[in-house]
Amino acid sequence: MLSDEIKTVAYEDGKLVILDQTLLPGREEYTELKDAEDVYRAIKRLEVRGAPAIGVAAAYGVLVGINARMAGWDGTVPGFVRLSGEVCEYINSSRPTAVNLSWAVRGMTAARDEALEACSACGPEEAVKAALSAMERKAEAIHREDVESCRAMAEHGLTLLRPGMGLLTHCNAGALATTGYGTALGPIHLGHERGYGFRVFADETRPLLQGARLTAWELSKVGCDVTLICDNMASAVMRSGKIEAVLVGCDRMAANGDGANKIGTGGVAVLAKEYGIPFYMFVPMSTVDFGTPTGDDIVIEERDGDEIRTLWYEKPMAPEGIGTFNPAFDVTPAEYITAVVTEKGIARPPYAESLRELAGR
Amino acid sequence: MLSDEIKTVAYEDGKLVILDQTLLPGREEYTELKDAEDVYRAIKRLEVRGAPAIGVAAAYGVLVGINARMAGWDGTVPGFVRLSGEVCEYINSSRPTAVNLSWAVRGMTAARDEALEACSACGPEEAVKAALSAMERKAEAIHREDVESCRAMAEHGLTLLRPGMGLLTHCNAGALATTGYGTALGPIHLGHERGYGFRVFADETRPLLQGARLTAWELSKVGCDVTLICDNMASAVMRSGKIEAVLVGCDRMAANGDGANKIGTGGVAVLAKEYGIPFYMFVPMSTVDFGTPTGDDIVIEERDGDEIRTLWYEKPMAPEGIGTFNPAFDVTPAEYITAVVTEKGIARPPYAESLRELAGR
Repeated sequence: MLSDEIKTVAYEDGKLVILDQTLLPGREEYTELKDAEDVYRAIKRLEVRGAPAIGVAAAYGVLVGINARMAGWDGTVPGFVRLSGEVCEYINSSRPTAVNLSWAVRGMTAARDEALEACSACGPEEAVKAALSAMERKAEAIHREDVESCRAMAEHGLTLLRPGMGLLTHCNAGALATTGYGTALGPIHLGHERGYGFRVFADETRPLLQGARLTAWELSKVGCDVTLICDNMASAVMRSGKIEAVLVGCDRMAANGDGANKIGTGGVAVLAKEYGIPFYMFVPMSTVDFGTPTGDDIVIEERDGDEIRTLWYEKPMAPEGIGTFNPAFDVTPAEYITAVVTEKGIARPPYAESLRELAGR
Repeated sequence: MLSDEIKTVAYEDGKLVILDQTLLPGREEYTELKDAEDVYRAIKRLEVRGAPAIGVAAAYGVLVGINARMAGWDGTVPGFVRLSGEVCEYINSSRPTAVNLSWAVRGMTAARDEALEACSACGPEEAVKAALSAMERKAEAIHREDVESCRAMAEHGLTLLRPGMGLLTHCNAGALATTGYGTALGPIHLGHERGYGFRVFADETRPLLQGARLTAWELSKVGCDVTLICDNMASAVMRSGKIEAVLVGCDRMAANGDGANKIGTGGVAVLAKEYGIPFYMFVPMSTVDFGTPTGDDIVIEERDGDEIRTLWYEKPMAPEGIGTFNPAFDVTPAEYITAVVTEKGIARPPYAESLRELAGR
């Protein structure tokens, strides 16, 4: 089972343990997060990354953070609300732009408030016990929903594939980014468990090399046939006939089906179209932003040029201070996307209608 | 003048000096090559690289190598033939697959033999002096031809461009690969000198990063506006409308116009076609192989996977021993090439005819 091999985030008997992804692929090391400070640091330093995985880690993290501070509780319900509120706020500030982080923390606060309200007639000890218990159930629910959503996407995605296929993926939309099978790598893991014998090509994904560091590690860890290539080799591999489908994740999809994802995804989509290879984008429904009409309305974050110029290197690989352009994402227009795979099913063009229809199910 | 700024290979008063490209972009250091051993090492270690530059360095290198050994000359003509033959053979073995290397060395041997034959009635001192003088003239001719060929390609190429254009290039087909303006970078240098104000985007060109290390250095050195991007960002830059022409070099062109060049070139060509951007390949006539009917007949060298897995890095960036596919080149089919620029003029499709016509001029 994949969940036995890769435990991105695990919670058992009140202990929160994560796989420290900053040490991959060199070392596979698990770290226990014992208080809010540990959780904050782990999220900020990208020891845990990927929107769904961050959400789950933050939910459990709130619980662990509160428990670690309970020795200082003043014994009153308002005191508990203040103490837990501080933990929530602190953890929420670890990565301000991560949507799943604030979503998970809000869910934990709501679970606390509901429990306290339902227990308004109880004594403070009993009320706080009920609140903590409700928060634990909420964190477990967030975790379970992620696992189930990944599983559903994997099952839907697998219906698009046949045994023995050659597949290409970009960046890491895998088990390491979620607490389940991953999004784009979901059908690859599921197919692998069912003996599909896929041959997977992983783009290294410059500048931060998530393909080389994470996807290649994750797939080889479970024994899947994976070949690492530089991003600029994808065209040659496609032309040679070795790729029969492209599977990628998505960071944000507009209502019309334009999808923003890791820089380079859009170029892979153009190549896939040219070579007649189906291009599938894996998009949890929570990633579809119906308030954003098209990809043109998505603002693309530009990052520090040192990621291109010097990061990872022993010596400068580019002239000092040379101008760079370093967008973190690009937009793949809907016309290049053969199908959008969600946990609720598969959407086909035109996406403006099919995505709404799926969302309503 | 470009030749004042970047002296890839220089020969003056019997001294051969090269720019050591293994130290770029961190350090700009010039090295004198004093004997055959220096020349062998410089070519083998890629201190001098690029087919035309290697040819020129080898030609002068033969001369320098012979001069360094003349103290051991036995005073006879056969002794000189043996001594110079050993130098030629040794230098020729520094990079066995470099076509321009053996071509230049053969040219030097032929110049020697012609001079010795013309001087068959002279004494050995006089005959050897005539041979050395003929070899020096031959090396200078090889050098001059390269400079003139680059200049002619640059002039032809510039007719395809307009001031202020945004240009994209891949790998390094520049002054550093030749002893003149370069091939694909020729019109960029020439246009820059004429105040065209190009905005150039340079692909970093994984795995060996010739774009980041060499092209970015070369263009910023002369004050040209250059922006470094990762290979997978080319699509986003093209889509944004910033690129109006793509200029690339060529390692070998088949008779039908299919061109093999640095890995990634073919993918850039597909993107250019999709975005309606002209794609120009710069091809010295010596690079057109009329004996190879199509690109399918070009064998692509596969290189060590460690170039992808570990080279340049402080820590392993991919799982140890992970499978890789590392082709050094890819083939851009003729249908993606808007025009082929040679020193004899510009060829347009169908290339099977236009290239033959140019070759016959």
